[in-house]
Amino acid sequence: MKVEHIGIAVRSIAQADKLFSTLFQQQPYKLEEVASESVNTSFYQLGETKIELLEATAEDSAIAKYIEKRGEGIHHIAFEVADIEAEMNRLRGEGFRVLNETPKLGADNKLVAFVHPKDCHGVLVELCQTIRE
Amino acid sequence: MKVEHIGIAVRSIAQADKLFSTLFQQQPYKLEEVASESVNTSFYQLGETKIELLEATAEDSAIAKYIEKRGEGIHHIAFEVADIEAEMNRLRGEGFRVLNETPKLGADNKLVAFVHPKDCHGVLVELCQTIRE
Repeated sequence: MKVEHIGIAVRSIAQADKLFSTLFQQQPYKLEEVASESVNTSFYQLGETKIELLEATAEDSAIAKYIEKRGEGIHHIAFEVADIEAEMNRLRGEGFRVLNETPKLGADNKLVAFVHPKDCHGVLVELCQTIRE
Repeated sequence: MKVEHIGIAVRSIAQADKLFSTLFQQQPYKLEEVASESVNTSFYQLGETKIELLEATAEDSAIAKYIEKRGEGIHHIAFEVADIEAEMNRLRGEGFRVLNETPKLGADNKLVAFVHPKDCHGVLVELCQTIRE
């Protein structure tokens, strides 16, 4: 298991990209809309870990709700696993509540599933597996 | 710049270590008290990035205040830089508020400094540089 990316909820990717480009001294390598999640995303590569900025594209998106409740900030940590279904089953067996019945299609060519933050000391944990081409 | 670690504020490291050891399928490689910050820390290595659990050892510690206000959860992202003083000066020149006049001694043999979360879309950014032995 490794840290694949850290997701940061922002109100405006256009604004946040200006700031994070200055902080990281690089431009995002990808902008991608994830329609199923009602978000736009922007990705930076820092060593083997990515930073993913997330902007809501609809009022009922999880990112819009998160910002309304807690403000902008770090939203989730994504851990890359080799076999997401096996990992979901392992964690369910350990008593974690996995929020998805089956993996769903996420940004950046990934299958993803989330673990309930109440089971992880307030951390929203994303499991992700790269889709084999 | 790379993601050196992600800091997670928890009420009890003893309890959180049980859960994160199960999630990560490994034990923490180090427990360390950082008296200057009034915290105990616990470290996991995941690829080239670490997860640092932080537990307050005093009521006036920044971690105690964070948990009181926001609950447990992701507290900061630490970015490794080659020359922390040069990076602090670069960011000040770009208009970021660096919260420390000079780098201070952090956990894990590091010099650290923090950037104001209001200048980073709600993200508490730690800069860190490994102390040369």
